[in-house]
Amino acid sequence: MDYRKQFFVSPGEKLKLAAIDPAHTAGHSSSEDALPEIQKHVARMAESQALLYADGQQSLLVVLQALDAAGKDGVVRHLFTGMNPQGTSVFGFKQPSAEEAAHDFLWRAHQRTPAKGEIVVFNRSHYEDVLVVRVHQLVAKSVWSGRYELIRDFEKMLVANGTRIVKFFLHISPEEQLLRFKQRLDDPARNWKISEGDYSEREFWSAYVEAYEEALSKTSSKDAPWYVIPANHKWFRNLAISQIIADTMGEMGLKLPPTRVDLKEITAKYHAAEAAQEKRAGKAPKPPSKK
Amino acid sequence: MDYRKQFFVSPGEKLKLAAIDPAHTAGHSSSEDALPEIQKHVARMAESQALLYADGQQSLLVVLQALDAAGKDGVVRHLFTGMNPQGTSVFGFKQPSAEEAAHDFLWRAHQRTPAKGEIVVFNRSHYEDVLVVRVHQLVAKSVWSGRYELIRDFEKMLVANGTRIVKFFLHISPEEQLLRFKQRLDDPARNWKISEGDYSEREFWSAYVEAYEEALSKTSSKDAPWYVIPANHKWFRNLAISQIIADTMGEMGLKLPPTRVDLKEITAKYHAAEAAQEKRAGKAPKPPSKK
Repeated sequence: MDYRKQFFVSPGEKLKLAAIDPAHTAGHSSSEDALPEIQKHVARMAESQALLYADGQQSLLVVLQALDAAGKDGVVRHLFTGMNPQGTSVFGFKQPSAEEAAHDFLWRAHQRTPAKGEIVVFNRSHYEDVLVVRVHQLVAKSVWSGRYELIRDFEKMLVANGTRIVKFFLHISPEEQLLRFKQRLDDPARNWKISEGDYSEREFWSAYVEAYEEALSKTSSKDAPWYVIPANHKWFRNLAISQIIADTMGEMGLKLPPTRVDLKEITAKYHAAEAAQEKRAGKAPKPPSKK
Repeated sequence: MDYRKQFFVSPGEKLKLAAIDPAHTAGHSSSEDALPEIQKHVARMAESQALLYADGQQSLLVVLQALDAAGKDGVVRHLFTGMNPQGTSVFGFKQPSAEEAAHDFLWRAHQRTPAKGEIVVFNRSHYEDVLVVRVHQLVAKSVWSGRYELIRDFEKMLVANGTRIVKFFLHISPEEQLLRFKQRLDDPARNWKISEGDYSEREFWSAYVEAYEEALSKTSSKDAPWYVIPANHKWFRNLAISQIIADTMGEMGLKLPPTRVDLKEITAKYHAAEAAQEKRAGKAPKPPSKK
């Protein structure tokens, strides 16, 4: 199953989230059933990450967006633990600071975009400025509705500089969300995660759906695709996202960079260093190598 | 074996690196022999990291310093892959940018220190300003020799704000370095890592040793300790460092934070949300729970 095809949001086409089953599993029956595949994809991701870093010519930006408890933190923990942290980082978007709020909405996102060779995961992102900001009317409609184009332009610029962008909306049902809230309530190891806002935001569910539908449809493109990931089943969410990221990186043409030095010259330096070392140790110098 | 005791650099005491065997293994015979212990320590580190993040009151700064090919990247890859990247990041210090060089030497380091809840690994660090800078006489002696105190003050301030600091010098022999250079030369998958400077820096080996001896001795303290890690054997290096970090974090008193909300109130909100959901679904409302 090619999840990139299955879950891709067609640019500009009207998106109806209600038409996508959040409990979809593409025929997989259980977590145990999916695990070997997930592990295979995560291993491919790690391999590609090492090449991306070594190559240092391109970068990857992963955007995670979802309603509360849909699993953004879980995606990070399950799929990015295991990537070399030298070259992989995660940035969580919170309420903007006073300094951030005093700038345009892309300013803080731009500061965290990946440098060449790096993977950056945005846990929430610049998309909040057409989502929570719209739902709670923090700016006028004329402002947020102009941002889709600004976001497209911004991402186009990143792509032009060698950044691959993949964006995931984790799609859960309100029933599943409530169930997860309940699990947090009942688990002393996790109830510190609960916030007062969890329940009040549920009132805005349909407004969020509407905001997501428009945002995803207006900012999905071939180069910066949005995927709607059925996420009621955590393991299926992990399976689909890991496959999509691994496939995306697999197409980036990543390879070990050529040696940037003159190997012959460096080999001569090596022999000189070796001879010096042996001289210090009082050994007879080796005859010069033919190699 | 308590490696924190064994490898601790006594504050102010004259350090002689030549007296420390870089091939030391504390009685372990092989990588296979050490692996189960390393895995245990890494698991403890990951557990502590999760608590550190949840707790959000303290932070951890790990400093890695060493001559070329001593294994800084290897420590990151082996010991920090497996930590949740949400809350763990690695910063590699390169040649300062023009903007960085235009500020005091601690400016760029300070920008990357961990926020509460975070672990940050410095791959190289502000110590370069009393190491490479001293060896290559990039500033006057009166300048670099004043920096030990500035570093102590800086780290004291971080500690006062809840940051634990652990600093590792990876100690290898020049023979081991040369061997590793040779391995890179011979491995097409790694010879992209070779730089022209590798060999020229070897000429300065004893100057570096002297600079490290003074820096470590003058900036080691109970709260921001330096450890000299025998690093000719990569697996022993990983064993000692993972034990020291796990032990250090084990003493930070990390625990799950108390719930920050009124659980009774949140539970009532949960029941209200549940009732609303059932009403929407057309089910008869549940009788109010006694719980």
